[in-house]
Amino acid sequence: MSSTALTPEIQDAVEAVRADVARLHGELVRYGLVVWTGGNVSGRVPGADLFVIKPSGVSYDDLAPENMILCDLDGNVIPGTPGSERSPSSDTAAHAYVYRNMPDVGGVVHTHSTYAVAWAARGEEIPCVITGMADEFGGPIPIGPFAVIGDDSIGRGIVETLRGHRSRAVLMQNHGPFTIGVSAKDAVKAAVMCEDAARSVHIAREAGPLIPIPQDRIDALYNRYQNVYGQNSDARR
Amino acid sequence: MSSTALTPEIQDAVEAVRADVARLHGELVRYGLVVWTGGNVSGRVPGADLFVIKPSGVSYDDLAPENMILCDLDGNVIPGTPGSERSPSSDTAAHAYVYRNMPDVGGVVHTHSTYAVAWAARGEEIPCVITGMADEFGGPIPIGPFAVIGDDSIGRGIVETLRGHRSRAVLMQNHGPFTIGVSAKDAVKAAVMCEDAARSVHIAREAGPLIPIPQDRIDALYNRYQNVYGQNSDARR
Amino acid sequence: MSSTALTPEIQDAVEAVRADVARLHGELVRYGLVVWTGGNVSGRVPGADLFVIKPSGVSYDDLAPENMILCDLDGNVIPGTPGSERSPSSDTAAHAYVYRNMPDVGGVVHTHSTYAVAWAARGEEIPCVITGMADEFGGPIPIGPFAVIGDDSIGRGIVETLRGHRSRAVLMQNHGPFTIGVSAKDAVKAAVMCEDAARSVHIAREAGPLIPIPQDRIDALYNRYQNVYGQNSDARR
Amino acid sequence: MSSTALTPEIQDAVEAVRADVARLHGELVRYGLVVWTGGNVSGRVPGADLFVIKPSGVSYDDLAPENMILCDLDGNVIPGTPGSERSPSSDTAAHAYVYRNMPDVGGVVHTHSTYAVAWAARGEEIPCVITGMADEFGGPIPIGPFAVIGDDSIGRGIVETLRGHRSRAVLMQNHGPFTIGVSAKDAVKAAVMCEDAARSVHIAREAGPLIPIPQDRIDALYNRYQNVYGQNSDARR
Repeated sequence: MSSTALTPEIQDAVEAVRADVARLHGELVRYGLVVWTGGNVSGRVPGADLFVIKPSGVSYDDLAPENMILCDLDGNVIPGTPGSERSPSSDTAAHAYVYRNMPDVGGVVHTHSTYAVAWAARGEEIPCVITGMADEFGGPIPIGPFAVIGDDSIGRGIVETLRGHRSRAVLMQNHGPFTIGVSAKDAVKAAVMCEDAARSVHIAREAGPLIPIPQDRIDALYNRYQNVYGQNSDARR
Repeated sequence: MSSTALTPEIQDAVEAVRADVARLHGELVRYGLVVWTGGNVSGRVPGADLFVIKPSGVSYDDLAPENMILCDLDGNVIPGTPGSERSPSSDTAAHAYVYRNMPDVGGVVHTHSTYAVAWAARGEEIPCVITGMADEFGGPIPIGPFAVIGDDSIGRGIVETLRGHRSRAVLMQNHGPFTIGVSAKDAVKAAVMCEDAARSVHIAREAGPLIPIPQDRIDALYNRYQNVYGQNSDARR
Repeated sequence: MSSTALTPEIQDAVEAVRADVARLHGELVRYGLVVWTGGNVSGRVPGADLFVIKPSGVSYDDLAPENMILCDLDGNVIPGTPGSERSPSSDTAAHAYVYRNMPDVGGVVHTHSTYAVAWAARGEEIPCVITGMADEFGGPIPIGPFAVIGDDSIGRGIVETLRGHRSRAVLMQNHGPFTIGVSAKDAVKAAVMCEDAARSVHIAREAGPLIPIPQDRIDALYNRYQNVYGQNSDARR
Repeated sequence: MSSTALTPEIQDAVEAVRADVARLHGELVRYGLVVWTGGNVSGRVPGADLFVIKPSGVSYDDLAPENMILCDLDGNVIPGTPGSERSPSSDTAAHAYVYRNMPDVGGVVHTHSTYAVAWAARGEEIPCVITGMADEFGGPIPIGPFAVIGDDSIGRGIVETLRGHRSRAVLMQNHGPFTIGVSAKDAVKAAVMCEDAARSVHIAREAGPLIPIPQDRIDALYNRYQNVYGQNSDARR
């Protein structure tokens, strides 16, 4: 596919996603989820088999919309589009795998945020002992398999862990969190809340036993939050 | 009640509380007590059965006075007032319950600040082992019951725990801190000092046994601070 | 003493100390040593029995030179001088005691910084296991007695602990750090380095036994740093 | 050597390194690796036996290119050059030793960053249990010997530990991290990633046993990252 194949409507959608994805990287910095050039956000282009992702190894100070990179769902850069002279994030194949296999996913985020990485290094899921986690994730945040870059194993690990799971976050073992959402913004929110949960529960457990929340209370909190919270669900778009 | 029922004096008081409440949310951000759209501050309107609270699910970057929401003491939005097209914070019922049942309370704050949540997840009160806690809270910071959104159980838990207690902060089990004060500013101060105490005492206890402060010394510190500290008590208004 | 008793030279010196003390409070904020209105810096006026200190209970956003308060060495506010309509910091008596009893001290700082408070809550001195501590403090950071506001017991505890000690920082038991220096800036530096040492050594010890530094190496580091480091000792003024 | 011995080409190279080194100190502040005037960055001047380093004891707010100090590879300040009236960093001898003995090193960084210092105070290397560490350091981050300022022992300890090692970071026992790189920027990146690894692995291990990464997976991650990541290796220059 070349850039000339894009209709004006798709071109407009691409521009909107470029702006969103560029801006949302600033939220990773604001919440301390990334250092140096690590971490990446991508967003699906509505109405097209395309997504937009961060370039590889570029400073967070240089992330303008026109530097973001447009890819097809196999992770190939669309030639002739802005940013296409650069390499996309080295995690592009994992993002692409998720978009190919989870059609409802509109955004994917990956970070090495400190506390989430700590749970991942022990291969231990985060138990759901605080109501904020029940609201946001509906239960524990699960661990995904150990997998390294080079084939589809990271993407497959994400999809196999999160498909059918309430959680929008998975901690890939020895690696770190990947989060998904209905939009790039929603996936960034999941990354922020995942680190917040990882930190709070870690610190809680350092000092003694945790009180579990009964399953029916977790279910009630999750159902209310997904259906009622925010301004008519605008908050997730 | 409709907006036309408000006298000019009350209208002025509402404007002042809107400005205070909007600005005070910035203090939650400054001290790292909230992430994303979590947390909320409310303030009672002096001379009226009304309070002002944050809208639900709105970014901290968008919290202007005209976005704050005016409610009656049952938590109903006053129609026709600025911001009334939005939903108020999902914790509005708990704030309203406190205002109805504790007439001296002028402000309420709720956060999911990390260290306070950690004590809450263990259901453990914070012991008063530092003089700054004795000054501010006059003893331990207590735990409130486990309660979920949907009825008055959160509000009732706050009131039953804090009524007659020196502490202006309660850690609702598995949930997080709620604080009260003579004003919205005073409740925000209590939220800041609660997290500071939760963090300092957590870290102290990680490394060995804590030295208790004798009760008569706690009493002396609390009485001095409440009566003498600051510029003629302006600091709490 | 009234303001009219001040010579022009002393007036100029007072202005300079006001500017220094106001500005240095910003360093407490920058390094996260204080929350809300807690913490205070004072500086002795060279050539006079006077010092300048922060007002009580005033926000760090409002600390201009003209808001600082001029006191004599008994801690009495000098009437008719800028800021004299306000109350000075509630720790003024402790600062005054130090200036009266330690003539070489040019600055005093008090904070409730988190890790220093944690050691203080256990009444445990910070062992000197990192070279940065040996440079700055020449050995462990000692614990001072438990003392509460109301008489000279805090000031006396500081002086009795630090007189003849290499350390410019003392952790008052169950309370927090007080630091001294040849200037207000030097005392602020000591407060920053005290918290840094408290944090690093706390974290180091959480994970296993610490390696001691031989006393002769501590002595060599301390002597070099006090005599050689910086630009001809300007850094401490 | 005097400043008049510098050719115009070398003069231009010196200016470029001065600008880089001054700017890169800001990254140490941004990532919280330094307090007060601690920490230092240096960069080798390409094509000359010279390097540029921070002055001793000067605030991070005052680090302009013209304040940086030009030294020869014995650590002597080049007279008559900008900044030469000041003393260079007290760690200059260690930087110089590294440049003399490791010709491929283009930048050196030293900090007292909290978590790296904590491992150093126990004399314990950081195990490679997260993929981000495997990418960046290719294995554990090693401990160097205890050594104090005054002779070549710090420089020698750095070189003997890092020569032939994949890691660009060494934790000098009881002291703190030194990092090297192909450029000053690359050494600063190593300092940032070293603290990130030190923090994540510390926190992971607090809560239970860590899962090791098989050596062949570490090797694969390291080889890919060193050869493929970023925009044609520009990211390290």
